[in-house]
Amino acid sequence: MGTSQILPGINSPADLQRLNYRELRSLAHEIRQTIIEVVGANGGHLASNLGVVELTVAMHRVFKSPDDAFIWDVGHQSYTHKLLTGRYSRFSTLRQRNGIAGFPKRSESEHDIFDTGHSSTSISSALGVLKARKLSGAKGKVLAVIGDGALSGGMAFEALSHAGQLGDDLIVILNDNRMSINENTGSLSRYLSRLTMTSSYQIFRTNVDRLISAIPVVGKSLTDCIFRFKRGLKGLFFKDNLFADLGFEYVGPFNGHNIEELEKILERVKVIKRPVVVHVVTQKGRGYSPAENDPAKFHGIGPFCITDGIVEKFDVLSFTEAFSHSITALAEKNEKIVAITAAMAKGTGLAVFQRRYPERFFDVDIAEQHAVTFAGGLAIAGMKPVVAIYSTFMQRAVDQVIHDIALQNAGVVFMLDRSGAVPDDGETHQGIYDIALFRPVPGISMLAPASAAELDICLSWAVSQPLPVMIRYPKNPCPPEQCAFRGTLIPGRGVIIGAGQAEVLIVCTGGIFPEVKGAADILEGVGISADIYNLRFIKPVDEGYFISVASRYSSVLFIEDGIVTGGIGQFLESLLLKHLPEIHTGVCGFPDRFLIHGKRHEILMEAGLDSRSLAERVRGVREAQCEAISNALHDVSDRNHLVDSKSAI
Amino acid sequence: MGTSQILPGINSPADLQRLNYRELRSLAHEIRQTIIEVVGANGGHLASNLGVVELTVAMHRVFKSPDDAFIWDVGHQSYTHKLLTGRYSRFSTLRQRNGIAGFPKRSESEHDIFDTGHSSTSISSALGVLKARKLSGAKGKVLAVIGDGALSGGMAFEALSHAGQLGDDLIVILNDNRMSINENTGSLSRYLSRLTMTSSYQIFRTNVDRLISAIPVVGKSLTDCIFRFKRGLKGLFFKDNLFADLGFEYVGPFNGHNIEELEKILERVKVIKRPVVVHVVTQKGRGYSPAENDPAKFHGIGPFCITDGIVEKFDVLSFTEAFSHSITALAEKNEKIVAITAAMAKGTGLAVFQRRYPERFFDVDIAEQHAVTFAGGLAIAGMKPVVAIYSTFMQRAVDQVIHDIALQNAGVVFMLDRSGAVPDDGETHQGIYDIALFRPVPGISMLAPASAAELDICLSWAVSQPLPVMIRYPKNPCPPEQCAFRGTLIPGRGVIIGAGQAEVLIVCTGGIFPEVKGAADILEGVGISADIYNLRFIKPVDEGYFISVASRYSSVLFIEDGIVTGGIGQFLESLLLKHLPEIHTGVCGFPDRFLIHGKRHEILMEAGLDSRSLAERVRGVREAQCEAISNALHDVSDRNHLVDSKSAI
Repeated sequence: MGTSQILPGINSPADLQRLNYRELRSLAHEIRQTIIEVVGANGGHLASNLGVVELTVAMHRVFKSPDDAFIWDVGHQSYTHKLLTGRYSRFSTLRQRNGIAGFPKRSESEHDIFDTGHSSTSISSALGVLKARKLSGAKGKVLAVIGDGALSGGMAFEALSHAGQLGDDLIVILNDNRMSINENTGSLSRYLSRLTMTSSYQIFRTNVDRLISAIPVVGKSLTDCIFRFKRGLKGLFFKDNLFADLGFEYVGPFNGHNIEELEKILERVKVIKRPVVVHVVTQKGRGYSPAENDPAKFHGIGPFCITDGIVEKFDVLSFTEAFSHSITALAEKNEKIVAITAAMAKGTGLAVFQRRYPERFFDVDIAEQHAVTFAGGLAIAGMKPVVAIYSTFMQRAVDQVIHDIALQNAGVVFMLDRSGAVPDDGETHQGIYDIALFRPVPGISMLAPASAAELDICLSWAVSQPLPVMIRYPKNPCPPEQCAFRGTLIPGRGVIIGAGQAEVLIVCTGGIFPEVKGAADILEGVGISADIYNLRFIKPVDEGYFISVASRYSSVLFIEDGIVTGGIGQFLESLLLKHLPEIHTGVCGFPDRFLIHGKRHEILMEAGLDSRSLAERVRGVREAQCEAISNALHDVSDRNHLVDSKSAI
Repeated sequence: MGTSQILPGINSPADLQRLNYRELRSLAHEIRQTIIEVVGANGGHLASNLGVVELTVAMHRVFKSPDDAFIWDVGHQSYTHKLLTGRYSRFSTLRQRNGIAGFPKRSESEHDIFDTGHSSTSISSALGVLKARKLSGAKGKVLAVIGDGALSGGMAFEALSHAGQLGDDLIVILNDNRMSINENTGSLSRYLSRLTMTSSYQIFRTNVDRLISAIPVVGKSLTDCIFRFKRGLKGLFFKDNLFADLGFEYVGPFNGHNIEELEKILERVKVIKRPVVVHVVTQKGRGYSPAENDPAKFHGIGPFCITDGIVEKFDVLSFTEAFSHSITALAEKNEKIVAITAAMAKGTGLAVFQRRYPERFFDVDIAEQHAVTFAGGLAIAGMKPVVAIYSTFMQRAVDQVIHDIALQNAGVVFMLDRSGAVPDDGETHQGIYDIALFRPVPGISMLAPASAAELDICLSWAVSQPLPVMIRYPKNPCPPEQCAFRGTLIPGRGVIIGAGQAEVLIVCTGGIFPEVKGAADILEGVGISADIYNLRFIKPVDEGYFISVASRYSSVLFIEDGIVTGGIGQFLESLLLKHLPEIHTGVCGFPDRFLIHGKRHEILMEAGLDSRSLAERVRGVREAQCEAISNALHDVSDRNHLVDSKSAI
């Protein structure tokens, strides 16, 4: 950020108006350098942000944010937008606690219209904002910027269809990351020969010609991640394409890296009185060769060395890697196993499986609903599908799990990576709802292993079951193995870490084990002995067994890395309150509000789930207990009286 | 069913092979008569089933079910399929307890491949079944039959896109109910002039010509309900249409009421080695003039008089009607109020609002995800959206409620009609998950009124709130008003029905109030006095107030018309166990399994939620309490000992 000359002077989009195109090109360069520098230091989304620098500059030159509203789909590509809307000076705090968020946030700027993080929502929300303005007489255009990947989510299609019906002047900017065009070169040529745009668009043709000659041959690996929609995109290059069918005007494709040309296009689009799709072709990772060459790697990334793009790597096994090993080994022995993901092959660790068993691997792109129901079909016809999707994105497929899995008694295994506290990405990416959302699903089993070995045991069991099983685990390194983690799996039962002689039992879900272990160690230091019971099974629970385990302790604390409301802790606590009323209890989990971005330990600290807070909580429960016992000694006579009076009812 | 000659002899699809086309036409007539007769008596889906008689016969003639798998989207149109697959003799039990279900059920017949009920899932599940067969070397074609309405759901689009990518020989039969073609006649003509099908399809052209001339001019009211997708359908009449873009072969449109022609088409389609869409045009309600003239009315219907199609009507106000009145009145005073539904304008009672305020009404078709996020956009831009969707279909939009409503602090009101026990339609339509799914959403309020007056009070409050509010109510007549229902709304607090002097308190969600009242009456008859506390607020709960109310009773039973796991009952019970451990408690709600179809009272009886079961349960809790008190009298000395030993810890 040190070498920037122009960017520091941009305090609001209005400041862009005084720059000429040479200066704007320099600005684009400075923006790229700033993004590379900050993402290199803090981690973040690199390739997608480098791809939309010129597009964002042109949008802010032609439209007047926030009177004209920009809604960024997913929102991971909003860094340039943030840099141009008064957030340059704080940009080095990107994704850091109390710093600039990695996604648009209404609380951060009036230029951020809608909080985003999940895919395929922008057209719906933009249409809502536009319609509200029409109804209330407010002015201003509304723009949704959506990538070709996000367009593959079904709700984007629902929104396009509705927008086409309404006919208001919504502007949808399709940010097409070029790679998806690869196999459609034939269609693109056909487009040029068939193109019959109305005369006002004819001037764009030369730009299109220029673009075509610039398209490189891109390798298969690049196309894979957005493969699914390529056939849909084939339709884009005709006037009678999908968008036109849905009632949109369509213009494009245009070179997304020429500010001057983009401005001309947007100026013309601005006056169209109907919904319009502007198809812009951009290059992911533009201007940073490591990212240009491997944009998937630089999609969401941790800190890396700017010179060569090499990412810091930890030696410790992550749960994602543990799953990757386990599923690949199991698939070797069981040819019924197939794996499904929704544009998360790399993130879920399924890439190895994909290479080893390409016929048995399915990436359905950003389409969680279809992924789940497709798995249901596979299962009832004899396969053993393993569906790996991040916890937060499984929220998209709740109905499908109920309706197309549980109701069919379909033996599908769900692997919910990034459950619990998720670092850096913020509110939208926390995996804290899965327990509450899926525990009520009839007949489903839900497990939460605490280590790599336990994950392997859980997964081996899961693929042997005729009914649906869900396994959740965090985005975290696996903790050191404990003997108990390898204990034989008995449905409904957890494992005890400790000698069974402690006064306190801490009951936990697997993902929060490291913090619970830390709390137990702190307590040991102050003379309080605590055993840990890793639930392993969130559902079903062998209630009799659990009560017998708990009965050996005088205080039991429940810790889960999920939201308390509707969680497992409240349920188990009420079980104990009924059967062992003399035991003192407490429940810790995520509170009933959204938690801002931060590192894992920062998020856990805010929720009171770090080791120190947990240790304090245990001490509190224990002290309440001691106090209660003391009071009870004095109350015995009162109690006798109470019982007497009650028996008269 | 009495006049049928041929149908009684059809014990399996194989029996169709010996019939000639004259006999098949007679069979179609008998099927129609049977369906009209049984639906007239039992209620059910009429128009859609009358539309697919010939199509279903042709499918069963050309394909060999269940080796060839038929998957019916939604499944409400599967009556002919049921009649032809050995279920004729039991068909008069349609939708009755222990009778034939109104939707496909795997437990009912090997010809029912997938349990359905919700929309837009068939292509996904069919693709899964097909892929499993390919992987395991099993033979047989797989057919998904999907209506143009169901195709508007985003996940159908996700599935088409994936199927096109995979390239396997999936057959998608688009059952296009003609009405949606109305405004596209121009496109249809263009189709005829442009059509450049490969030569093998050219023979179909004469059929298409014949079809065109048969299409009537259909009124606007018919098109409204499927209006949204009409623009998409425009694309269907070209070879380069949406389906072709997604990698499908496309043939059609064909007359869906000519068995002989359909057979010829299906025979040809059968040998295509790629995914194919067969576009069939059918007429809803075909062969029954009241249904032909008003298919929306005969979509899902109660028992009616066959002669004139007039439906039995009860004088009692339903919750749906109560909402209809309230929202229309509120909208009069508050012009910020807009209403949104997803193809349920009539079912949710919004049709009146729609007529009165067409500019402020939005039917997004079967697209719950978009409906919710669209509402989020409207809300943050200053409107007050009221989204009315059946409880079971809101399961589709859980992520959107978290991500696009709660996270934005968007003041959207959700009206969940058909919450709790839903009669007749079976497992897929029960509204019993909403409490568990939405109570964990941060910052949302959730209310459950027990009467029309209380619904009005709740809705008036909801539209005045800056944050999201959800109101759930059953498919049931409103019970007689109680004075308490009109009590002032205080957030977090419920209302007491009773004198406050009883020994038992029954705490309930609003929808189950009639059964709870019945239980209280039964108890009164046997000398047990019970007050009722209608929670009104499921979230938030004013815990201090609730505890103070409960403290006046010796037994408290919690009754909810939702699933117990993750419900409100367990939460409140644990609150009492902690604060008032001397009170005896119990929780009643839906169990952790799917409940088969039946009348409301039959479903409630199976779940132990009918008045008699509830009264028994109250008596059980009270007796346990009496026993406990009696034991306590003897235990006092032991207890002293216990406390002594504990204080030594």
